[in-house]
Amino acid sequence: MPTEDSISQKLEESSKKVDPLINLVLKPRRPEQLYEAARHIIEAGGKRLRPYLVLKSCELLGGDQKAAIPYAAAMEILHNFTLVHDDVMDNDPLRRSVPTVHAKWNVPIAIASGDLLFAKVYEVIIREKTGQMPCDKVLACIERLTDASIAICEGQVMDISYPGTENVTESDYIAMVGRKTAALFKACAEVGAIVGGGTKNEVELLGDYAWNAGISFQIIDDYLGVTADEKTLGKPIGSDFREGKKTLIIIHALWNASPDDRQKVINVLGNAQANHKDVESVMKILEKTGSLIYAKGQAKTYAEKAKKRLAKFLESDSKRDLVELVDYFIARIR
Amino acid sequence: MPTEDSISQKLEESSKKVDPLINLVLKPRRPEQLYEAARHIIEAGGKRLRPYLVLKSCELLGGDQKAAIPYAAAMEILHNFTLVHDDVMDNDPLRRSVPTVHAKWNVPIAIASGDLLFAKVYEVIIREKTGQMPCDKVLACIERLTDASIAICEGQVMDISYPGTENVTESDYIAMVGRKTAALFKACAEVGAIVGGGTKNEVELLGDYAWNAGISFQIIDDYLGVTADEKTLGKPIGSDFREGKKTLIIIHALWNASPDDRQKVINVLGNAQANHKDVESVMKILEKTGSLIYAKGQAKTYAEKAKKRLAKFLESDSKRDLVELVDYFIARIR
Repeated sequence: MPTEDSISQKLEESSKKVDPLINLVLKPRRPEQLYEAARHIIEAGGKRLRPYLVLKSCELLGGDQKAAIPYAAAMEILHNFTLVHDDVMDNDPLRRSVPTVHAKWNVPIAIASGDLLFAKVYEVIIREKTGQMPCDKVLACIERLTDASIAICEGQVMDISYPGTENVTESDYIAMVGRKTAALFKACAEVGAIVGGGTKNEVELLGDYAWNAGISFQIIDDYLGVTADEKTLGKPIGSDFREGKKTLIIIHALWNASPDDRQKVINVLGNAQANHKDVESVMKILEKTGSLIYAKGQAKTYAEKAKKRLAKFLESDSKRDLVELVDYFIARIR
Repeated sequence: MPTEDSISQKLEESSKKVDPLINLVLKPRRPEQLYEAARHIIEAGGKRLRPYLVLKSCELLGGDQKAAIPYAAAMEILHNFTLVHDDVMDNDPLRRSVPTVHAKWNVPIAIASGDLLFAKVYEVIIREKTGQMPCDKVLACIERLTDASIAICEGQVMDISYPGTENVTESDYIAMVGRKTAALFKACAEVGAIVGGGTKNEVELLGDYAWNAGISFQIIDDYLGVTADEKTLGKPIGSDFREGKKTLIIIHALWNASPDDRQKVINVLGNAQANHKDVESVMKILEKTGSLIYAKGQAKTYAEKAKKRLAKFLESDSKRDLVELVDYFIARIR
């Protein structure tokens, strides 16, 4: 089992390589408000998992991490673009313990600064091309991250437009989080692998690794949203229920609860007025249906699938780091 | 003077070449609502000026229009992405005589479908690369359109965040519309020129042509917003005043009116309650200050600058088309 300290240190080392370029691309210029808003969520923190995945995938294939830095920066900027717009769409007031962009400024600034971040994804890649990387490979990377961006839009709209949580199946859930979360992890590994000089098969294997890792990451994210205490969570317990969030846990419970229990869960879902007692009763039903255990099990299954995709690569520090990353996804408590 | 019929026919011919590719890239797929929303404003019409500019710039340099079609499609998609998001930011209910995306669906769908369109800009270029165009040129085109996207975000935020119309100078105005409108025209001509095999100097000249043309286009847009009748305008007369829109006409009037008149104009600007009489009184002040005539004169000056940039190119049908385009910008009545 990875210790949170060990992985934290590695993530920090990687972000020390990538953050200066992010800061450079988003350095203050006219209109200052736009650039300040664009830097806001990035500066507020975040684990920098995606740049780490780019650098480690590149390294695994014997590539020079330096060549992957612009791509690592691009993927973190892309991730933050989606956060800024998602927060508007979901009307979330807080992110990384600071007010979201639309809450601190307003919706127009949040839309424009998200758009700016999206454009900066491409700028950082094109501006920083050292000339060492053949241009067909640059285009291949742009293709992967563009596909991921399209998938993210699709996943977000699936999330906000599924008719009602009670009809969502596990396969709908995977289709949704596969696009919303896992597609970007996949693109990070693919881009890192392309920069690292991977063969078509290696790029595909690493992409599959990261896609499966991404699914397990999201399931655990949902799990923590239900089980973590208020302080770790940064929002009241039961928020995910009140927001009607479509998590694997809830989907499993709805398909496996008794008709009475099912109705009780439905009554709480998306009900902003649900009180502590309502939330407690849902928690009890989740225990009865074994939905928490089921979700954790599914997260582990996807994590195992992810690790299996690494089997063909020779043992190395970077391979161990990629295995450790997935183990951390499962073991993490925040 | 170009007849509106002549240019309309040419724009239609050009859009017949480009629209099928736009439709292909945005064809219905899951989630259908997202793709329907993404097609909504594009299908509602529009002059397709930007694709025309791409194709004609390519043709001017002896390039094959066919090679420029993906780029022409990309630029029209990019333009429509900015319209969808701008409509949310400006809270506009109508565009091209149909409800805007956020009005027909909702703000989250408008944000997500705008984001999708932005990603599709890159997809259409990368997917449709025939292999005939060297990849360094593909990257050069991506660079130009990415720069334009960044400029558009900057221009939009300048527009919505300038402290108050009464302090905006003509040079602020040019900085703003240079980014919001002219940068995309410029990128269209540059991209067309790159695809057409233009030299660095030719790309620059055509970019300058289109930037100046874009400024003149925007000034006339503002002019028509004040002088056109309600039917042509599609919204009540005086709307631009009530919305506090920062047009060259208003900026000129504020700098040239008597203190009393200046105050009268300021009182109407951004005042949603301003009545017909208020609007009439502003119109009278604009006549006194000669601001309408001044703006039209400036539009003509930029149009002349644009045409001068074409001087070094040999006479050809496409050169005449590009000259005609700028003449049309000035002469148009809608």
